[in-house]
Amino acid sequence: MGLTDIYKPIQKDLHRVEQGLKKIANTASPLLSELLDYTLQNGGKRIRPALTLLAGKFGQYDAPRLVLMATAIELLHTATLVHDDIVDKSAVRRGKPTVSRTWGENRALLLGDYLFARAGRLTASTGNLKVVELFSETLMTISAGELKQTSVVFDLQKAREEYFDWISSKTACLFATATESGAILANTPESTIGALREYGVNFGIAFQIIDDVLDFVGEEAELGKPVGSDLSEGIATLPTILFMESHPENDVVASIVAKRGTESTAAALEMVRSSTAIEHCLEIASDFATKACQAIQHLPDIPAKQSLVDLARYIITRRK
Amino acid sequence: MGLTDIYKPIQKDLHRVEQGLKKIANTASPLLSELLDYTLQNGGKRIRPALTLLAGKFGQYDAPRLVLMATAIELLHTATLVHDDIVDKSAVRRGKPTVSRTWGENRALLLGDYLFARAGRLTASTGNLKVVELFSETLMTISAGELKQTSVVFDLQKAREEYFDWISSKTACLFATATESGAILANTPESTIGALREYGVNFGIAFQIIDDVLDFVGEEAELGKPVGSDLSEGIATLPTILFMESHPENDVVASIVAKRGTESTAAALEMVRSSTAIEHCLEIASDFATKACQAIQHLPDIPAKQSLVDLARYIITRRK
Repeated sequence: MGLTDIYKPIQKDLHRVEQGLKKIANTASPLLSELLDYTLQNGGKRIRPALTLLAGKFGQYDAPRLVLMATAIELLHTATLVHDDIVDKSAVRRGKPTVSRTWGENRALLLGDYLFARAGRLTASTGNLKVVELFSETLMTISAGELKQTSVVFDLQKAREEYFDWISSKTACLFATATESGAILANTPESTIGALREYGVNFGIAFQIIDDVLDFVGEEAELGKPVGSDLSEGIATLPTILFMESHPENDVVASIVAKRGTESTAAALEMVRSSTAIEHCLEIASDFATKACQAIQHLPDIPAKQSLVDLARYIITRRK
Repeated sequence: MGLTDIYKPIQKDLHRVEQGLKKIANTASPLLSELLDYTLQNGGKRIRPALTLLAGKFGQYDAPRLVLMATAIELLHTATLVHDDIVDKSAVRRGKPTVSRTWGENRALLLGDYLFARAGRLTASTGNLKVVELFSETLMTISAGELKQTSVVFDLQKAREEYFDWISSKTACLFATATESGAILANTPESTIGALREYGVNFGIAFQIIDDVLDFVGEEAELGKPVGSDLSEGIATLPTILFMESHPENDVVASIVAKRGTESTAAALEMVRSSTAIEHCLEIASDFATKACQAIQHLPDIPAKQSLVDLARYIITRRK
C-alpha cells in the first residue's frame, strides 16, 4: 500500500501543511526565501506531519490547530536536518546538494536557527502551552543526544544499548512528539495521548533501524544520498553492531569502527551487507513496528487507526 | 554609578537568575554540563535579565515568573553568542577561548541548539503564550538579520541605513524583548508595554554603537577580545561608515571594506580611531540613550525607573 492511500483520511489537511510550508518561504528577504524554498520543497514523505494529523483524529479533530502543529513538526525536522548536514559534512540529501554545501556552513547554521524559531512560533500559534513545552523538550532531547554522540567511545559491550539511546533521542523523540502533540490538540484523554506517544516512539525506532539498514543495502539513486556512509565514517549502527556481536573474531569491520573510518571500507561494507545482521535488523525493526501497532490496539477502529497500522508496515518495507 | 547600585531594586531576583543559570548546567550528561557551565559562568554583566526584572516592577511584580523569563532571556542571548562565534570564527570571548575553538564547531552548534530549546522551555514555563510568541519572533529576527548580513554588498549610500537595520535585528530586538516580556508578565497596560519596549529598542541601539566604538578604542584586556576585528574583516560598523562619509577621498579605509579585509588594516584602524567619527558615534549613541529614557518618562517614578535611566547612562560610558 502506498502513501497516497495511507494518507487518505488526512489528505486535505496534509495538502494544507504543504501550502503552509510554501507560505513560510515567502519572506521579506530574498536570500532567506530562496533558502527556505530550497529546503522545504524537498520531496520529503511528510510522515511526521501526517502522524500529527492522524493522531488528531482520535479526539476533537481541530483542523486549523492540527495543521499549524503538523507544519511546525515538519519545520523542526527540517531544521535538525540542516544542522545535521553541517555536523556530518554531508554533501547530498534527497538527491540535491545540502544547504551547507551550496550556501556555506554559516548560512546553513543561521537558516537552521531561523527554522527552529519559525517552528516555535507556529507551535505557539496553536494557543496550547503543553505542545509548546513538548516542542522545546524535543529539541533539547535531540541536541543533547547528538552532543553526547560526539563523545561516545565505541565499546561492543555497551554498543546496542547506546545505539538505542541514540536513535531514541535523535529520531524516535520527534515521531513521539508528532503523535503526542496531535493527541493533545485534539483533547484526547491521557490514556490515548500515552498510547499514541508509545506508537510514535516505537515507530521512530523502527524507522531509524530501517534507515540504517538502507545505508548498507539501499540504492543510491533511490535514497538520494551515498550509501555506506555510516560505516565509512566509523559510525557503528545496528547492522554493524549485530555483525560484530556475531563475528567477534572479525577485525576488518572492528578496526574501521575503532579507528573511526580512517581505513578503506569496501570489504567491511560487503561483509556486513552479506551477513545475517541485515535480516536480523529487519526482524528487530519489524518487532518495533508491531509494538507501535500494539500500543494503539485499544483505540477506536477509525480509518486513521488503519492508516497508522499501514504506515508502520510501510516504513519497514520502504526502500527509500 | 556602578551596576551594583543600579541593580539594587532587583538584586535578590537577579541573584536567583544566577542560581537558575547554575542549575541549568546540572544535566545527566557530563559533556553537556561541562559546556553549559563554561558558557553560562562567563562573567557577563547580565544586563538583559536585569532589564526584564526592572520592567516587571512597573506592574504586578510576579517574582517567580519574571525570574524564569529573565533566565530564558540570558540563555537566548548566550545561544546566539555561541552560534555567532562559529559564524565569525572567533577565538576569544570575555577573555576565554570560545566553545567552538575549544570543543570544535560541531559541539558549539549543538550546544547553541540546546540553549535555544532550554530557553524556549523556560519561557513556556511562565505559562504565558504572549512571551512565548515574542521569544520565537526574537530568534526569527536575529537569525534572519544575520543571514541577510551574509549577503550585504557594501554601498556607502545605503550603509548607515543598513547598519541600523542590522543592529536593530541583531542587538536591539533582544533588549526590546527583555523589557517587553517583563512588562507583559507584570500585566502592565499596553501603553506601559509599548513604552518599555521602546526603551529597550533605543537602549539596544545605543549599546551596539558603543560596542562597535569599543572595537576601535577599547582595551583588549578590558574587553576580553581582540580590538579592531570588525574592520580587519572588512565589516563596516558605524565608526567606519561615518569616517567614510566624511572622507570620501580616503581609499585606505574604503579598500579594506571593499575587499572584505584582505589588506593590512593597522593604518586604516588608526585613521578611524583618531578621526572625529568616534566622537560622532558617541553622540549618536548618547542620543539613543536619551530617547530610551524619554520613552519611559511618563511611567511612575519608582526606583526601577531610576535604574533604567542610570543603566542607559551606564552603557554609553562603559569601557567594556
